[in-house]
Amino acid sequence: MPLIVQKYGGSSVADAERIKKVAQRIVATRKQGYDVCVVVSAMGDTTDELLDLAAQVSPMPPPRELDMLLTAGERISMALLAMAIANLGMEARSFTGSQAGVITDSRHGRAQIIDVTPGRIREALAAGHIAIVAGFQGVAQDTKDVTTLGRGGSDTTAVALAVALGAEVCEIYTDVDGVFTADPRIVPTARQIPRISYEEMLEMAAAGAKILHLRCVEYARRFKMPIHVRSSFSTKPGTWIVDIPPEEQMEAPIISGVAHERGEAKITVVGVPDKPGEAAQIFQVIADAGINVDMIVQNVSSTATGRTDITFTLPTSDLPTAMAALSKAKDRIGFEGLLSDDQIGKVSLIGAGMRTQPGVTAKFLTALADAGINVEMISTSQIRISVVIREDDLPAAVAALHRAFELDDPEGQAVVYGGTGR
Amino acid sequence: MPLIVQKYGGSSVADAERIKKVAQRIVATRKQGYDVCVVVSAMGDTTDELLDLAAQVSPMPPPRELDMLLTAGERISMALLAMAIANLGMEARSFTGSQAGVITDSRHGRAQIIDVTPGRIREALAAGHIAIVAGFQGVAQDTKDVTTLGRGGSDTTAVALAVALGAEVCEIYTDVDGVFTADPRIVPTARQIPRISYEEMLEMAAAGAKILHLRCVEYARRFKMPIHVRSSFSTKPGTWIVDIPPEEQMEAPIISGVAHERGEAKITVVGVPDKPGEAAQIFQVIADAGINVDMIVQNVSSTATGRTDITFTLPTSDLPTAMAALSKAKDRIGFEGLLSDDQIGKVSLIGAGMRTQPGVTAKFLTALADAGINVEMISTSQIRISVVIREDDLPAAVAALHRAFELDDPEGQAVVYGGTGR
Repeated sequence: MPLIVQKYGGSSVADAERIKKVAQRIVATRKQGYDVCVVVSAMGDTTDELLDLAAQVSPMPPPRELDMLLTAGERISMALLAMAIANLGMEARSFTGSQAGVITDSRHGRAQIIDVTPGRIREALAAGHIAIVAGFQGVAQDTKDVTTLGRGGSDTTAVALAVALGAEVCEIYTDVDGVFTADPRIVPTARQIPRISYEEMLEMAAAGAKILHLRCVEYARRFKMPIHVRSSFSTKPGTWIVDIPPEEQMEAPIISGVAHERGEAKITVVGVPDKPGEAAQIFQVIADAGINVDMIVQNVSSTATGRTDITFTLPTSDLPTAMAALSKAKDRIGFEGLLSDDQIGKVSLIGAGMRTQPGVTAKFLTALADAGINVEMISTSQIRISVVIREDDLPAAVAALHRAFELDDPEGQAVVYGGTGR
Repeated sequence: MPLIVQKYGGSSVADAERIKKVAQRIVATRKQGYDVCVVVSAMGDTTDELLDLAAQVSPMPPPRELDMLLTAGERISMALLAMAIANLGMEARSFTGSQAGVITDSRHGRAQIIDVTPGRIREALAAGHIAIVAGFQGVAQDTKDVTTLGRGGSDTTAVALAVALGAEVCEIYTDVDGVFTADPRIVPTARQIPRISYEEMLEMAAAGAKILHLRCVEYARRFKMPIHVRSSFSTKPGTWIVDIPPEEQMEAPIISGVAHERGEAKITVVGVPDKPGEAAQIFQVIADAGINVDMIVQNVSSTATGRTDITFTLPTSDLPTAMAALSKAKDRIGFEGLLSDDQIGKVSLIGAGMRTQPGVTAKFLTALADAGINVEMISTSQIRISVVIREDDLPAAVAALHRAFELDDPEGQAVVYGGTGR
């Protein structure tokens, strides 16, 4: 029997009523003739409640114990889901990450999957059962301790199991209908994208589209596992994230969508001596603090002073740590000062077609200029243009770009990939 | 280093503040020069909350999934306790029942421990860590599924680990000071018993003393593991449950205490044909319904009718199931009718000394008669006398017996075992 892996997030299983609804959907899939393996997150606010309990007993809980605590969340939701399915007359079996063979390294709180050995899941499916697996968790290969996978962990569990079990598709259920050409709360005319390539989805995720985590899309791309992101509250098709062969890409739309990100800040390191190795030292300090940077811009150095400025963006939550680490290294590195700004926004345009289409950058910048928006930093990839602007300008910028690239138009570019099937 | 196993119940870890208090006590024990292995129950009402969630998704949750769900409770409390200990500067590691090597059969909801292989606990202790183990749970030897041990499960986990690890003592922390000569809420002059034999404690537990479950005392007796029942809210010594050698028993007090039980009902099977095998058929029906009976009384049969009445007691919660099962079997067994009564109480007198002391039964019945209390059923063992009376009479009966056997008197019999040390 062909196999589908389905993943339901915390909002889809937030209470008993929703769990029963999800159970109905799973049973319906089974009755359509599919084996079903389900990956489930913790119910609604469970994880936050557990973190709150942890904070009450310790300001710095040991990561191993925090993982032990948090994994109780999926244990609860998966057992309840299995019960709800049983109540509909189907056999279901729940499995922890460890029981499902999700083998990780031992970096608690942000473990990486290093192997998936789902022997017990295969047995359960072969026995005609529906398998329910706890997302977000695994077991460390060396210590045998329980680990959590960190952000995007449940989606990644689902894709990893889909790959290991040879599923036809990994369905990710969420509280929106799919991936849109822009955030519909900002652009009411934004349209759902029926089909998008892994590369574009990666750029969308990196540019701030919250719907899927980079990590899960990367895993799916590596193994060419189709992902179908769809709503757990409707039966409409959502967005397919798939491998799009080059011949199809020739006819791809120039632009897939506009993404934005509010949660970043920028730091400018002023007066950096313009000689080899200086930038490396700065980013080594940041890396040692465990912080990932996003965009980096280095100005042309002034020949008069022999010094330059380096500006980069990073998650706002990491700003205090980064500022403290750089301040400590100021004398050693020899820069003149630090500026920080947490009122920035990032807006990005993504589209595989821009590879072969000249003029996209010019059109992009013109649209923003016409809207009276000042651009502070620019960064591009082959299929993405991103700029940093004032945070207050974000809604206007997203709307202006969406309009300029005709994403509003139902006959426009966004749907050129066409088709909603597999 | 000598080892102590400590078990903390749900009320001892009901919230963050209590968990921090328990952590302090554990650390203090460690600093006194003991290795410490801690067994912990789920926080306060967690188990009831999880059961309530289960009831919301299914009227009849599969036992395997119910066990998966309920074991989340100890997972939460043990991780929090390990964090609280770490916050006091000691290393602690939490382990699930499965990780701690608590191997059971696969009877979900009432699994029996069949082996304890605490390799990971030994390693943690050898590394100088405090080990925290989830009570009430284990892993099934054949299916590798998570199991729960049912009533008294956490105490039994503690005793079983104490035996497997060769602990000096298994300390059971609870919300009372120890075992008393009677329930202090009924008899204000009741006194704490400093030391009691396994046999007497078994009879106390069977007779309704709620402080320890039969099962855990039986396990301790089998392996002669001393249990120290004490309060988690004070540092006073509690009650030691130990092996008392025969030579000491010669000087044992006649009576250790008075226990009572409200949660039982009785069923009278009326007009049972008085021939071999009839009683066996009745109790087979009850056993097939999964119900344990307590006292059984068969009246002398009437020679006129060749029929007799059989009366037995059982947990009140099992009364409807038992009545239904017997009604169905009425024609096959051939009895005339069924009577049931859930307004009964049981009062028991326990004392190893009564083995060699004649006249205890007479004194017992006289005390009740003097208090105007009617006795409905009598059952005795070598070290116990129990009677069934009206539930309303229980307080008066307990008080009358406590007084008649001089348990009120601080110089009286109850403390003859003497000493509170080991």
